[in-house]
Amino acid sequence: MANQEDIFKKVISHAKEYGYIFQSSEIYDGLSAVYDYGQNGAELKKNIREYWWQAMVQLNQNIVGIDAAIFMHPTTWKASGHVDAFNDPLIDNKDSKKRYRADVLVEDYVAKIEDKIEKEVKKAAKRFGDSFDKEQFLTTNQRVLDYQAKADGILKRLGKSLENEDLADVKALIEELEIACPLSGSKNWTDVKQFNLMFGTKLGATADSTMDLYLRPETAQGIFVNFLNVQKTGRMKIPFGIAQTGKAFRNEIVARQFIFRMREFEQMEMQFFIKPGTQMEWYEHWKQARLKWHLSLGMGEDNYRFHDHEKLAHYADAAADIEFKFPFGFKELEGIHSRTDFDLANHEKYSGKKLQYFDPETNESYVPYVVETSIGLDRMFLAVFSKALQEEELENGTTRTVLKIPAVLAPTKAAVLPLVKKDGLPEIAQKLVDELKWDFNVAYDEKDAVGRRYRRQDAAGTPFCVTIDHQTLEDDTVTVRHRDSMEQQRVRLGEVKDLIGKEVAMKEWLRKI
Amino acid sequence: MANQEDIFKKVISHAKEYGYIFQSSEIYDGLSAVYDYGQNGAELKKNIREYWWQAMVQLNQNIVGIDAAIFMHPTTWKASGHVDAFNDPLIDNKDSKKRYRADVLVEDYVAKIEDKIEKEVKKAAKRFGDSFDKEQFLTTNQRVLDYQAKADGILKRLGKSLENEDLADVKALIEELEIACPLSGSKNWTDVKQFNLMFGTKLGATADSTMDLYLRPETAQGIFVNFLNVQKTGRMKIPFGIAQTGKAFRNEIVARQFIFRMREFEQMEMQFFIKPGTQMEWYEHWKQARLKWHLSLGMGEDNYRFHDHEKLAHYADAAADIEFKFPFGFKELEGIHSRTDFDLANHEKYSGKKLQYFDPETNESYVPYVVETSIGLDRMFLAVFSKALQEEELENGTTRTVLKIPAVLAPTKAAVLPLVKKDGLPEIAQKLVDELKWDFNVAYDEKDAVGRRYRRQDAAGTPFCVTIDHQTLEDDTVTVRHRDSMEQQRVRLGEVKDLIGKEVAMKEWLRKI
Repeated sequence: MANQEDIFKKVISHAKEYGYIFQSSEIYDGLSAVYDYGQNGAELKKNIREYWWQAMVQLNQNIVGIDAAIFMHPTTWKASGHVDAFNDPLIDNKDSKKRYRADVLVEDYVAKIEDKIEKEVKKAAKRFGDSFDKEQFLTTNQRVLDYQAKADGILKRLGKSLENEDLADVKALIEELEIACPLSGSKNWTDVKQFNLMFGTKLGATADSTMDLYLRPETAQGIFVNFLNVQKTGRMKIPFGIAQTGKAFRNEIVARQFIFRMREFEQMEMQFFIKPGTQMEWYEHWKQARLKWHLSLGMGEDNYRFHDHEKLAHYADAAADIEFKFPFGFKELEGIHSRTDFDLANHEKYSGKKLQYFDPETNESYVPYVVETSIGLDRMFLAVFSKALQEEELENGTTRTVLKIPAVLAPTKAAVLPLVKKDGLPEIAQKLVDELKWDFNVAYDEKDAVGRRYRRQDAAGTPFCVTIDHQTLEDDTVTVRHRDSMEQQRVRLGEVKDLIGKEVAMKEWLRKI
Repeated sequence: MANQEDIFKKVISHAKEYGYIFQSSEIYDGLSAVYDYGQNGAELKKNIREYWWQAMVQLNQNIVGIDAAIFMHPTTWKASGHVDAFNDPLIDNKDSKKRYRADVLVEDYVAKIEDKIEKEVKKAAKRFGDSFDKEQFLTTNQRVLDYQAKADGILKRLGKSLENEDLADVKALIEELEIACPLSGSKNWTDVKQFNLMFGTKLGATADSTMDLYLRPETAQGIFVNFLNVQKTGRMKIPFGIAQTGKAFRNEIVARQFIFRMREFEQMEMQFFIKPGTQMEWYEHWKQARLKWHLSLGMGEDNYRFHDHEKLAHYADAAADIEFKFPFGFKELEGIHSRTDFDLANHEKYSGKKLQYFDPETNESYVPYVVETSIGLDRMFLAVFSKALQEEELENGTTRTVLKIPAVLAPTKAAVLPLVKKDGLPEIAQKLVDELKWDFNVAYDEKDAVGRRYRRQDAAGTPFCVTIDHQTLEDDTVTVRHRDSMEQQRVRLGEVKDLIGKEVAMKEWLRKI
């Protein structure tokens, strides 16, 4: 079986070959950790966004959407804590002039220790054969125990130093471990310094006042600053939510894993405003509600799990991730956070304006608490795409590459194929395209043998192929081929629209939530 | 009748009051020329974007969409000409320290001359009464002719100086006209300097290499750099188009007129790749096709006109605007440009990579020509919103404020209103909401008298109200009230979904194009 790295490479090359994802500015040799979505990727991304929006906004009477700008007043980021605390600890090597994340240098060192443990395990497994008990070996072999103790000790110290912002000790740790620059081998390091992850820019050009702006590192604050405007003009009553999708930017030093962690990315966030004291109930509610949304796509229950945070961010009193099994293992896909009144209270403080909700039933005013659901659209794209890409052995011994994207999200819903390029079949096919296109994206393909066209549509992720053949001329029937099962059914031409329409309709999928 | 300025003020305050548009970061006293879309604005904007996307991409087999990043390799903007030529001429007043667009200072001066002409006209009209012939007066009155000659002379000289980048002469002109700083009255000016309109930022944080980036000032270049990737992976044959919607940024010095000219805005652009020599034919095609798209919304033929450019941008061999009658007069809403091979040829030059199309029929390779359609989404929003806002005198002498947004674009398609809050009517209403919400956005409202609720929905732009009353309990019928005509019809409860569904369905509106 292919290993994780090979699978991931295949994901990246397939994404390019089939017009899903291109490297940004590829003709200029690219821009690191920035990607463009191609003709199929743009549609998949749009469909995921719409599936989220309908589930969150259209179907919930007490959730509304907004679309706030990327540019916000800079004090916003003072209030949110991003100016002071949204940092990575960086260290420069004086010889190579290369800059690194200090914590990543240490973590990479620890990863090497763990590789050693893995080596010991493999060696022992080979030696002991069937009688090898990995669990027992890990807890009794002294060499392994020593490695593990060392690794644990290093990580504990790193965690403590970072928590206390003791950057001198992070440097001391790097020096004690004799960590060398991966590029030059030099151990000649500068001090560790905090580096803010927000991108800056300058607004306006008046001689006396240029304003330093940031590109927003999250969409959530656009919701908080508009909380009262939306509540009042929308006559919203607590509990209610405000949802938003949009771009956010983080100047990641170590950006990697394709579109999993990018410098420019898109978020889908919902802030749910509630009465203080009810947060645990709503936190549980949204954990379950969001998991159900994911499961409705039918990508396998086993590929999801919750990860409850033990260490909480400064604004949260409870937090969990929905993790997804990516080609590189279980990783965060969505976060559900109980943010208390941290954000609204800080915006009150920094703006000097009241951000309180007046409860008409109890005649009380209070700053609401917030439970947030936050998912990366690009990350969701990677989850769908990487899970969908499959190589299948067929009965005849050949292999087919198929992109089993849930039909509701597939870029093109159907391809219409005339069996041959004559006898009036192309005209019938084109007529069907002109009928179907009003309801969903449809492709026409007449090039190459029909088997080859099926493969091409399989690889592109098209859930249905409709073939027009000579029998169509006689009895007005066509073949509908299903991508996943490869089953073919014969249906009347006039029934095609409803048959496929029902399978791809968003509302039919949303009913499964 | 209300004057233009009053109408425009009403547009802005109504947009805020009904949750369409809020000032950005309002709690921090706002950010100049940046706006946020509220709960209704976000839906209207989303619907306009979708109406464009379906018309351009879903309905055209030879147009596909992409979604390129805001960040692009900086050489992109060298090749496109933006680094060298995307400038405004600025001048500082040494006493007030205020900075101005030099051309706008001169234009404002000319506007004052034109005000004088207008005054002469009014005076003469009063004096001559019915026998006043404006046209004749303008061409014979010596004072008016002198004013006009002066204004024309100034604008001609300004145009020539800007074209020749003779900034010293722009300054000389300002001094000769004795133009004073509007703030301080001082005539103590600095030299005129070019100021680039792109926002800059810095990518990465390695010690030795930080990359200067720009926020894209237009989405078009994201299409050009991906041209070959899309053409090859999508097996596209010329003529074909690539469409994209997304944010763009311009550091406007004089940003004004609400969302008409913002520093952060969203574009909807399509680049149509064609064989050189066929551009005039396609240019005419897209002028007409785009006008038809606008007319399909039923906002009045008289509110649109073409404006063919006499002075062409450096990249164009033909260009026209579709102008719309905004509250402040006819202004550009959309541009159609024949861009020749300017962009692709320059990207070839700067990247050193071939960006040519191989024509399988003629066995030739060539750099395609491009016809572009480019519309500002926010500007389209303003067109729809400002045209929709109307004050109507009713038969009973009262006035109603109604937002006649085309039903296909309206944020909420229907409001369901129980006549009273008892007798089981709210339960029936809620059940109807739960049925309708799968197909479109629907609101429930039970507060205040039903007449008041109708007015509220009128002002919010909801095209249909469905009222549940006591007769519903008897015969399962409800009242459907139409926003624009205020007509009411009695229909069966089970028919409501199809009745409204058909009126708001995008595909029904798209068929009118």
